[in-house]
Amino acid sequence: MGLFVINRIAELREKIKNFKREGKSVGLVPTMGCLHNGHASLIKASSERCDVTVVSVFVNPVQFGPNEDYDKYPRTLESDKELAEKNGAAIIFAPSVAEMYPGMNKFSDITMVAPPFHMVDMMCGKSRTGHFDGVCTVVSKLFNIVQPDYAFFGMKDIQQLYIIKKMVSDLNFPIEIVPCPLVREESGLALSSRNKYLSEEDREIAVSISKSLFAIQNAVKNGIIDTKKLFDAAITVMDRRVEPEYIEFVDRKTFEPVDTIKKPAIAAVAARVNSVRLIDNILIGE
Amino acid sequence: MGLFVINRIAELREKIKNFKREGKSVGLVPTMGCLHNGHASLIKASSERCDVTVVSVFVNPVQFGPNEDYDKYPRTLESDKELAEKNGAAIIFAPSVAEMYPGMNKFSDITMVAPPFHMVDMMCGKSRTGHFDGVCTVVSKLFNIVQPDYAFFGMKDIQQLYIIKKMVSDLNFPIEIVPCPLVREESGLALSSRNKYLSEEDREIAVSISKSLFAIQNAVKNGIIDTKKLFDAAITVMDRRVEPEYIEFVDRKTFEPVDTIKKPAIAAVAARVNSVRLIDNILIGE
Repeated sequence: MGLFVINRIAELREKIKNFKREGKSVGLVPTMGCLHNGHASLIKASSERCDVTVVSVFVNPVQFGPNEDYDKYPRTLESDKELAEKNGAAIIFAPSVAEMYPGMNKFSDITMVAPPFHMVDMMCGKSRTGHFDGVCTVVSKLFNIVQPDYAFFGMKDIQQLYIIKKMVSDLNFPIEIVPCPLVREESGLALSSRNKYLSEEDREIAVSISKSLFAIQNAVKNGIIDTKKLFDAAITVMDRRVEPEYIEFVDRKTFEPVDTIKKPAIAAVAARVNSVRLIDNILIGE
Repeated sequence: MGLFVINRIAELREKIKNFKREGKSVGLVPTMGCLHNGHASLIKASSERCDVTVVSVFVNPVQFGPNEDYDKYPRTLESDKELAEKNGAAIIFAPSVAEMYPGMNKFSDITMVAPPFHMVDMMCGKSRTGHFDGVCTVVSKLFNIVQPDYAFFGMKDIQQLYIIKKMVSDLNFPIEIVPCPLVREESGLALSSRNKYLSEEDREIAVSISKSLFAIQNAVKNGIIDTKKLFDAAITVMDRRVEPEYIEFVDRKTFEPVDTIKKPAIAAVAARVNSVRLIDNILIGE
């Protein structure tokens, strides 16, 4: 039925209301644009499950720290449209900052949705102060604007996924969160919009981040359950030009840190390659 | 059609879904129970405007401070049912704490909705740390559970009303907030569930709180616009046994503090009578 590109909240609401009146189910894929095959898999999952798929494209200033890459974050709406339509999206919602945050002067001027401290006092939350408050706030806004039946989140941003699931449960959003597997290049590198920042050489270095996670996965398969030893196994295969920020191990059910891998868990890493911050994670201990 | 009393979220959702399928509009009146004629006016306003009125009755632990009256807050569900039904409610939603906060151990364990600092760094927010975070969180939950078209809030809790309106706008809840006028006894005393704590003598003392607001209103009518003078006018008529916590003046549009009354404003007071904390407010400068 062709792709609608909508910039205004009121127009989107009207469109969604009509879809709902027709009894159609709505799926939301929230993105910051610069869509790649990871996003494609989310959009495909949504269009397989829902009658109407809305892809939001919004680089949310509230989730970026003052020294982060908000200004240079890649904006590629034209190719985003193509990828979204090809994978079955009915609507791209691409609002302006003024449309999403009218009259906002500073961070403290708006109502914020904040995840519980224990979920941000770890992994990316430690270095990216306020990031997940910004994520929860904009996702709440998108949930209220789109009112989807399902929302699709990639397991690449694994901490975000668990925080959003907690938010939906804590605040009783009438929405089912559908996690979708992380997608890798053939080299093993996890797909990310930030890969655009990498030179050819950076990219080869970055591949060793995923190698370090495969090393952990193999070590667990070989019976090593002590996370200190798993950490060492990871560091050994990581290119020395990678600057790791963390390698952490969490329970797959509770998302709490674990010292030994006795149950299904996740190994997650954040690292910089030539100042580009990348994240990746892998399921271990099934 | 008779009043349904519902304790479970899932059951309420099912009922609401059926109403919506029939094209019925839904109004929500969130309360902590112990309903009085102030609540009655909210329920009446809702049943006049909406096909179905849901009155929630939930004493929300998350909005009470450690030294506040959560435990002794009056619970009167039987008479609440009667008052709700008489004024046109279709449903009382009275969930348990475990239903609303399953598995919550402590305050920091859940996703919270926090109003902007400038709106809580004043009036009741100053003495009741975290109170409005608790209010915004539970109201967000109720909004997501009930999914009303309209929600009715009393102007008695004037700071709460402005904070909820800001939350709805900031987070794009698809809900219209309907403010309803404060209701007074013939004596002038603002109706409040906490009036139950007052002895006959306390009640006579408490009446002077409203008198102090009427004194402000009259002074403004007589051309006094300096809020310091208005403050003095209020204190003069207040019984000496009343312990005022604040008398503040805010712009009626922006809810920002004002020094002079040049535009429509609000005079608001919090005070203790024999350790019972009461609030009241009045519109000035029309």
